[in-house]
Amino acid sequence: MKVCKFGGTSVASAEQIKKVANIIKSDATRRFVVVSAPGKRTSEDIKVTDLLIELANAVIQKQPFDEKIAKVVSRYEDNAIGLGLDHEICEIIELDLKARCEAALKQNDDAIMDSLKASGEDNNAKMIAAYFNSIGMLTRYVSPKEGLVVNDAPERTMAIAEAYEELSSLKDSQEIILFPGFFGYTKSGQLRTFDRGGSDITGAILSAAVGADLYENFTDVDCVFSANPKVVNNPAEIVEITYREMRELSYAGFSVFHDEALMPVVKQGIPVNIKNTNNPQAPGTRIVSKRVESKRPVTGISADSGFSILYVSKYLMNREIGFGRKLLQILEEENISYEHTPSGLDDISVIIRSFQLDDAKEERILQRVENELQADDVNFRHGFSMIVVVGEGMKYKTGLAASATAAISRTGANIEMINQGSSEVSLSFGVLEKYENVILKELYSEFFSAITV
Amino acid sequence: MKVCKFGGTSVASAEQIKKVANIIKSDATRRFVVVSAPGKRTSEDIKVTDLLIELANAVIQKQPFDEKIAKVVSRYEDNAIGLGLDHEICEIIELDLKARCEAALKQNDDAIMDSLKASGEDNNAKMIAAYFNSIGMLTRYVSPKEGLVVNDAPERTMAIAEAYEELSSLKDSQEIILFPGFFGYTKSGQLRTFDRGGSDITGAILSAAVGADLYENFTDVDCVFSANPKVVNNPAEIVEITYREMRELSYAGFSVFHDEALMPVVKQGIPVNIKNTNNPQAPGTRIVSKRVESKRPVTGISADSGFSILYVSKYLMNREIGFGRKLLQILEEENISYEHTPSGLDDISVIIRSFQLDDAKEERILQRVENELQADDVNFRHGFSMIVVVGEGMKYKTGLAASATAAISRTGANIEMINQGSSEVSLSFGVLEKYENVILKELYSEFFSAITV
Repeated sequence: MKVCKFGGTSVASAEQIKKVANIIKSDATRRFVVVSAPGKRTSEDIKVTDLLIELANAVIQKQPFDEKIAKVVSRYEDNAIGLGLDHEICEIIELDLKARCEAALKQNDDAIMDSLKASGEDNNAKMIAAYFNSIGMLTRYVSPKEGLVVNDAPERTMAIAEAYEELSSLKDSQEIILFPGFFGYTKSGQLRTFDRGGSDITGAILSAAVGADLYENFTDVDCVFSANPKVVNNPAEIVEITYREMRELSYAGFSVFHDEALMPVVKQGIPVNIKNTNNPQAPGTRIVSKRVESKRPVTGISADSGFSILYVSKYLMNREIGFGRKLLQILEEENISYEHTPSGLDDISVIIRSFQLDDAKEERILQRVENELQADDVNFRHGFSMIVVVGEGMKYKTGLAASATAAISRTGANIEMINQGSSEVSLSFGVLEKYENVILKELYSEFFSAITV
Repeated sequence: MKVCKFGGTSVASAEQIKKVANIIKSDATRRFVVVSAPGKRTSEDIKVTDLLIELANAVIQKQPFDEKIAKVVSRYEDNAIGLGLDHEICEIIELDLKARCEAALKQNDDAIMDSLKASGEDNNAKMIAAYFNSIGMLTRYVSPKEGLVVNDAPERTMAIAEAYEELSSLKDSQEIILFPGFFGYTKSGQLRTFDRGGSDITGAILSAAVGADLYENFTDVDCVFSANPKVVNNPAEIVEITYREMRELSYAGFSVFHDEALMPVVKQGIPVNIKNTNNPQAPGTRIVSKRVESKRPVTGISADSGFSILYVSKYLMNREIGFGRKLLQILEEENISYEHTPSGLDDISVIIRSFQLDDAKEERILQRVENELQADDVNFRHGFSMIVVVGEGMKYKTGLAASATAAISRTGANIEMINQGSSEVSLSFGVLEKYENVILKELYSEFFSAITV
């Protein structure tokens, strides 16, 4: 039993939706389909979700919005025509949108935005279900109202335990289940959308709820690459990768998946297969809990810029029980999360994503570290990149750190920070941003023996 | 103006004490002398401090102790004869010891032990002052009662701010000041001894109080070596080293100095010179706040065994603000200090000195991490060594991490953990204990190009 999720470009046009139908038809175990809102058909196109955001803003600002509804409906009409569907489905969608806009009078701005954005997935699911039925595939559109129960605001939207129980009954359905991604309902019936990667989350929740054997995630790329193809020329394709490796690589260049989305399947060990709607024969990339050892110790290399380093030194720091904890507490009170905390005996560096900082926050932190921790020296430095070399095989390979550091030193870059914990699944380096790309290329060529740009 | 501290072997015999006198005489700026209790004269000898501990135990257990007093006095008599002193000084010492034993009736066990142990330094100072005067060196024995004010029990003994004010007046003395190391008095007049390295602390406090230009610390070695001479054959001598480097090297093989002892001079930037009483012409090792750059990026390499790793992993750990802080809090509540916390995105390893752990503590920590932090995986592993490569010049040298990791990989050892913060004064590695010595040798040969055993 498989759950298949199709992203925006996979369901953007009639032509794409026909591919989806063929994919589902070609494998009887593909019994659950989760869809996004129609994405871009060409690079100049506008996503339906963006049209819906425009519409929602007009509604919120009490401006005329009929034309904006028409624009959205017209996108569905294009697809309906291409799919040979009755116009009836477009009328259903138009009425639904009008009903959402009318309901807006009694809703706050966030609820209006959520409701209209979610309509993109919801109405697309209805249309695709209609198409499946029209070509003889017995399909039932299921609304998230039927079981996808989420927590209440203001916490980040998450499915609660009940959702898994309620949705589990869907596994006995004789029909193909067509489920819109991206949103659920609170116990009191309030619609709430998930964060980034929302349809991926829905697919993962459904997979966990019905106990799927595989969660197929259809996108518009053949696979996940071992390094960012915008930097490294023709990087190797990753055939199999563990959840853990995928997570460690979740810096830039590996944005296929919003990592949090995988949580429900990780917990149950359900494998994920990233596949291409436009090339479904390609094996894609499998994300699994354990994988067979490959010859390459390194699975992937990722890099990301925009890091700052908070440096704190104090003579005899390591004698002071609680120093590190107090420092992290100060950051926590400023609501700052950190990546790593490499340390000497008398100093500690905290690696932080710079977007979390501003002048006032930095000043407060510096003051507190000086006054409360009596640090000898404390400062912020900015403009760093983090480079992460990832692979489950790294722990079995002596000399790997030597190869990595030698590759970096060949670029002439200084290594500002090195970090490798005892899991040994990743080795990370802090470097000045200007060296990021050249180091990524050099490391790639070191570990994948491929030609780089 | 210099403060000179002489360790136990430097003041163990009449012959040694004569060397001390010559050292002081040879430089008119050597105006303050801090002495330890008489140490071993031969490797089979017993330190006076150990004789005093035996005496104190007899007193505490209400056993006869006259013979034990006689044993201590006899050590001083040997020295008095060798130095050509009147027997009077020995009578003073004997009376002092008897008075301490009598006072014991009104004291608790800790106070008895402190008082008798401290008598070793105190009486040695009196005798050496008598000797200096006997050969025409105008000298005044000063008791720590005259200003070395320490905090009250039960906190670790430390000089309080008043001590520095009170002792500062000694700088105007026309006589050589002879000061016993190792102890001070609380405001209410209670004698308290310092922890390990006690006489070093007294010397540092006195140096800071009188604003010395140099704190000379006389021992029985010519210098500090760049690696443990018990492992590496003929390691290079360190001529100059910064406080920071000294601290980072304070793992095993660098036990010349108890690092905490340096605190008072570090704060004022007073340089320290480690010298050999038996070879005072040798330049020794200078510990300074800043040093001129040397050609070698690495100043020293130290290693120590007896480390454990607490490994914790949890999916999406790095999204959870406060995770690291809570983990450190659990350790803090078990009164455990840690060395480093290298981390991946979803795991963190805490490097801990194993002596702090026992089965019950480990069990409690594992339980709490599982229950309170909902970790996916948590375990302790034991039997690790830490190897630390230290040098202020390392930050200017690209490729240093590459050389170090390449050297380690040549030994066939796997690197369990790597840590380098942005101070870049040290680079540390966690390895299995069995590889410690072979790695130390290989790293030494990499960075010092010397022949190793």
